[in-house]
Amino acid sequence: MSRAGMAPMTKVEVVVAGTDAPHVQELFTQAGVTGYTAVSNVSGLGHGGYHEGRLLFNDQSALSLLITVAPEEKLDALLAGLRTLFERRSGVMFVSDVYVSRPEYFRS
Amino acid sequence: MSRAGMAPMTKVEVVVAGTDAPHVQELFTQAGVTGYTAVSNVSGLGHGGYHEGRLLFNDQSALSLLITVAPEEKLDALLAGLRTLFERRSGVMFVSDVYVSRPEYFRS
Amino acid sequence: MSRAGMAPMTKVEVVVAGTDAPHVQELFTQAGVTGYTAVSNVSGLGHGGYHEGRLLFNDQSALSLLITVAPEEKLDALLAGLRTLFERRSGVMFVSDVYVSRPEYFRS
Repeated sequence: MSRAGMAPMTKVEVVVAGTDAPHVQELFTQAGVTGYTAVSNVSGLGHGGYHEGRLLFNDQSALSLLITVAPEEKLDALLAGLRTLFERRSGVMFVSDVYVSRPEYFRS
Repeated sequence: MSRAGMAPMTKVEVVVAGTDAPHVQELFTQAGVTGYTAVSNVSGLGHGGYHEGRLLFNDQSALSLLITVAPEEKLDALLAGLRTLFERRSGVMFVSDVYVSRPEYFRS
Repeated sequence: MSRAGMAPMTKVEVVVAGTDAPHVQELFTQAGVTGYTAVSNVSGLGHGGYHEGRLLFNDQSALSLLITVAPEEKLDALLAGLRTLFERRSGVMFVSDVYVSRPEYFRS
């Protein structure tokens, strides 16, 4: 079984304006995640709108894609922080299932 | 429950030659997706070959990775458009399950 | 059914120091994967530590994100190679389920 010894975790991907990336990284840290990966200078269009209905992003604006993986016990704090951010700032988040080796590195 | 209030959607990731990225963006729009993220200047090798057996990509060629998330009702049109593209152009697509908050932004 | 004709495969995402990316690409090739995508100049922090407890990455170090998709029959060799690499080198890998069209291109 290929995934023997791997542990289920949750991947959270966030796309925000590049200027908001430090805020997301701070939220990650506050939620206790032990690491993240950031892809900067990403472009994007849309995802619909913010709660007043204005466009989230304009095409070709400088966005950042931030990726982190968290164990179940850190997920509530992480998602709550991101939801609060998205009440004020444009962005999207995608949550999905992943398996990792060495799960202790995500729990420290 | 961490995913309370989140809605299941489908993430579609497409890797194509950078010169074909505008075509993919157009397909996204035609399928009614409300947004996407594009990572340009990605490199890659392979994924096997196109139907005549030629290589999909050469190593280090300038590729684009385009990511979108769609609700079920837009998925058929989206995947049909991409399949038609891949009959003529090199590329791969990966389809996976994600959860999003604020699902209404993906349905507008 | 949107995913009719699509085949389940496994996506493996690896984040390593940019200088280790060629080693990962070599592991991919040895495991027989038919393609991969590489995003270079990614930044990152953490994911905890390596087995002596030192930090995996320092913030803003130049990392690479490598993405491949493999059928079940190639997965054991792929994950075994990566686990061996991570005994000596810093990095993380995330394993998840995806669906692909044209599965024959991932099996050649």
